[in-house]
Amino acid sequence: MRWTQALLTTLRDAPAEAEIASHQLLLRAGLARKLTSGLYTFLPLGLRALRKVERIVREEMDRAGALEILMPALQPPDLWEKSGRIQAAADVLFQVKDHQERRWILGPTHEEVVTSLMAGEVQSYRQLPRTLYQIQTKYRDEIRPRFGLMRAKEFLMKDAYSFDADEAGAKQSYEAMVGAYRKIFSRVGLQALQTEADTGVMGGSSSHEFSVPAEIGEGEIVTEEGGSYAAAIEKAEGCPTERKGVAGKMEKFPTPGIRTILDLEKKHGIAAQDQVKTIVFTNGKETGLVLVRGDDEAQEAKVARALGAGFRAAADAEIKEAMGASPGSLGAVAATLAGKKITVVADLVLKGQVGMVTGANENGFHFKGIEVERDLKIDKWADMRTVREGDVSAEGKKLKVSRGIEVGHAFLLGTKYSVALGAKFLDPHGKEQPAVMGCYGIGVTRTLQAVIEVHHDKDGIQWPAAVAPYTVMLVTLDLADPAVKAATDQVMASLEKAGVDYFWDDRDERPGVKFKDADLLGFPWRVTIGAKSVAKGGVEVKSRKTGAMEMVSPAEVGNWVRNQLAA
Amino acid sequence: MRWTQALLTTLRDAPAEAEIASHQLLLRAGLARKLTSGLYTFLPLGLRALRKVERIVREEMDRAGALEILMPALQPPDLWEKSGRIQAAADVLFQVKDHQERRWILGPTHEEVVTSLMAGEVQSYRQLPRTLYQIQTKYRDEIRPRFGLMRAKEFLMKDAYSFDADEAGAKQSYEAMVGAYRKIFSRVGLQALQTEADTGVMGGSSSHEFSVPAEIGEGEIVTEEGGSYAAAIEKAEGCPTERKGVAGKMEKFPTPGIRTILDLEKKHGIAAQDQVKTIVFTNGKETGLVLVRGDDEAQEAKVARALGAGFRAAADAEIKEAMGASPGSLGAVAATLAGKKITVVADLVLKGQVGMVTGANENGFHFKGIEVERDLKIDKWADMRTVREGDVSAEGKKLKVSRGIEVGHAFLLGTKYSVALGAKFLDPHGKEQPAVMGCYGIGVTRTLQAVIEVHHDKDGIQWPAAVAPYTVMLVTLDLADPAVKAATDQVMASLEKAGVDYFWDDRDERPGVKFKDADLLGFPWRVTIGAKSVAKGGVEVKSRKTGAMEMVSPAEVGNWVRNQLAA
Repeated sequence: MRWTQALLTTLRDAPAEAEIASHQLLLRAGLARKLTSGLYTFLPLGLRALRKVERIVREEMDRAGALEILMPALQPPDLWEKSGRIQAAADVLFQVKDHQERRWILGPTHEEVVTSLMAGEVQSYRQLPRTLYQIQTKYRDEIRPRFGLMRAKEFLMKDAYSFDADEAGAKQSYEAMVGAYRKIFSRVGLQALQTEADTGVMGGSSSHEFSVPAEIGEGEIVTEEGGSYAAAIEKAEGCPTERKGVAGKMEKFPTPGIRTILDLEKKHGIAAQDQVKTIVFTNGKETGLVLVRGDDEAQEAKVARALGAGFRAAADAEIKEAMGASPGSLGAVAATLAGKKITVVADLVLKGQVGMVTGANENGFHFKGIEVERDLKIDKWADMRTVREGDVSAEGKKLKVSRGIEVGHAFLLGTKYSVALGAKFLDPHGKEQPAVMGCYGIGVTRTLQAVIEVHHDKDGIQWPAAVAPYTVMLVTLDLADPAVKAATDQVMASLEKAGVDYFWDDRDERPGVKFKDADLLGFPWRVTIGAKSVAKGGVEVKSRKTGAMEMVSPAEVGNWVRNQLAA
Repeated sequence: MRWTQALLTTLRDAPAEAEIASHQLLLRAGLARKLTSGLYTFLPLGLRALRKVERIVREEMDRAGALEILMPALQPPDLWEKSGRIQAAADVLFQVKDHQERRWILGPTHEEVVTSLMAGEVQSYRQLPRTLYQIQTKYRDEIRPRFGLMRAKEFLMKDAYSFDADEAGAKQSYEAMVGAYRKIFSRVGLQALQTEADTGVMGGSSSHEFSVPAEIGEGEIVTEEGGSYAAAIEKAEGCPTERKGVAGKMEKFPTPGIRTILDLEKKHGIAAQDQVKTIVFTNGKETGLVLVRGDDEAQEAKVARALGAGFRAAADAEIKEAMGASPGSLGAVAATLAGKKITVVADLVLKGQVGMVTGANENGFHFKGIEVERDLKIDKWADMRTVREGDVSAEGKKLKVSRGIEVGHAFLLGTKYSVALGAKFLDPHGKEQPAVMGCYGIGVTRTLQAVIEVHHDKDGIQWPAAVAPYTVMLVTLDLADPAVKAATDQVMASLEKAGVDYFWDDRDERPGVKFKDADLLGFPWRVTIGAKSVAKGGVEVKSRKTGAMEMVSPAEVGNWVRNQLAA
């Protein structure tokens, strides 16, 4: 491709709204353009890179035995009613009403559609296992789209679904997909961390995320120093610093004006870790209390798991009505909750604790001398806290919290969808069984941008060769010089013969402008053809990543690059 | 791919709703499955064929110099308000409302988005011409989806858009695209007819359709016997049989109970061709009359062109109010329309006609002795009639009307969109000019089904090699026989070496079942490996199209097929 015939304008500056490097580079290097918030058009260079990512995903899916299909984006809502997800996912669903007043869902994911497909296709255990995948456009009604392709309204996903005859088979299919994911991320140039993850609204028994460590990541990852434990913050478990309390008897004391854990610490000298934090949730009908130690935070995903989907933090009025007191004076003291229909879930860290302080469920009063299991109403124990930097793992190793970009996710779903949507088969004994499912997603457009986020410097992108829009940027200086023209032709012939793709900067621009753009676009190798070096029988080949330069004979450039690629 | 690991179930019968052969075969051969009316999932075999069509489209687009991009399906409606199409296209637009009550359009086409993109990218004539294309999913709110992929709610399109500095350049770009279309349709195995077409809601000055002749086609095509004229019925011009009238004076006569042209012919002996047919249209505010000869029909697209978009056939009450009479007694007799604000467009065939009969605009009365230009109020002359079989062309040749599947469409758009959406550039004199545009569409999924519609027989599909899901169906009989197994391995190695893709029927089924399925699936060659022929040192290669069989040595099968493909 010649620059003068391409659709490529590089920008000196990115719009102010592009806050992160990869988003800025996406626009500055002419890879994509914003149509409107959360919606992007891929320009030719960006699309080429995207297709290379797609090809790698496809190759590894095929190699793992998955079968490619293509499902519609428009989905009938009745499938989502059957799976029970229409409410749970309502916030992010784009819904369409047609001229006949029928509703449609623009799919953010395809568990329902693929399961109902397999309900029709599979009759016997002999047709299992099967893993299906597609690379297809997804939709999410993102209220605050962010960071370019990172969180968009419309994006490309690779979504896969495995169907097995039993749990053991499902685990094998799951491992095959997770193994393919490791290869995919490695091939596109990402060191993605595989972490235990929450199953969330998807349901199921097991889940892993693949995250690319990056400061701008929206996810938090917990890792063990010198160990192998890695989990998403929603799922991570850790132990905080130990606390020693002194047993005593429960005693009410006045705490006028106290509204927070910090207030009580400052004004009454009661350390946060000696307090029980009581948080109220509601699903509109029922009330749930979550208790954590005063210096801990309740983890949202764990709350959802413990209380069930649909619970949210209660508003002040709801709290007052349910508890008879306001935030700041709340407590799960059994005596004060008598007759109230409230479910209390306590964090495991509180187990066995004595000499603690909690609200009296009476404004302006607290209890001290609390012995958790003696004095509080507790219906269920669970891990409810958010891991903090400095916690220790089960192995006694220090935990570190860092940020990551979630690029992939795998779920072992069990039979939730196959039961709801009738994906059943006859087992060898002629008995009907629901298929055991898994689902697996890779954000293809997000992965592309993560590559840029990880591979760039102050001058521009540093594409890994596997996904670079082109492998070589051919920069011809002194275009009018016949010897340079001849050398350019030679280099092109050599690259074509070697099967190396290149982009030719044939613009009538100063060398400085061309070099700056070559750095910004960031193809792995820049080949510069100018009168001076041609006179010496060579052209300059420069690595974008290392900056290393070498003189290569024009006819040898193709092989030279191929050897580098193979190295 | 092995059948026992594939996702492939062939069906003996297609669902009753599949009315046409290609739709039945799409389902019977396991290429696609219906999710719900107008929405289809591509199964692996169907997707492979689709990808092959896509690849051919992409190759020819690239060869013609078009640049591939990818635009979002979700589009902001304000762009459609700027182009003025939001009303005109409202009937087929899927509209989405998000959680913030903002509206979105699910794009049926991308003129607005691409023009606003180019408004940002192009500043100078030096950046022109450019033709951009994408292969992308489109949406149409089809009230009556039909014939599988032929008329679906969601479908794959290749849409291209050319931007030129002037009209002459635009015509060149148009020719390049139309040339690419001819190659594409020929390569996928379709003899598509290029016809002059109506520009319709798209606007613009010139248009061509590509139609595949087929009885089930929804479009009508007019061709010249022994000539080169070809046009879509909406655009076609022809001359009907000539009529000779006798001049006289206008005279009213009673015609009680007459409601139709036919009534008047039957009860009063006035031949249809001696009558003027008067049809009333309205846009809610204005009234327009269209006059054609009594034996002709007014052509809808021509009416829209002559009266303007938004006009529709008036309802009886509207007719009564505008005309003062009811259908059956309507006429454009000047004397009766005095004081009425009505635009009358007359078909060219009526020019110079005398001795005609028309309604008196008074129920139960007609006029005879009408001399069209003397007695009728006519504001505009235009070709308004629908060509009929037997008309003659301008060249005096007989015209034939047949049916076709529209697979491609090209429009020379002019500056309608570039003016509305600001796609302007500075010309060599530093003057701002709007880009001159063209747009070009191929229904990729429809093209795929058209291939099946054209290439099948009673036993199944007869894929052209270029788009067949696989080139070879490998049928192994006597699976347990070691010699057969060895020959199968040899054939596979030979095919792989030759780069020929194949599908292996490794099922434990009777030969009859396998042969029947091979015919249904319709890959170009069936290679049968059985104990008998292997003993003689050969395998049987059979052409699906001709039925010709040949014995080929197992190691030679790959080269044999390659030679056939090259022939």
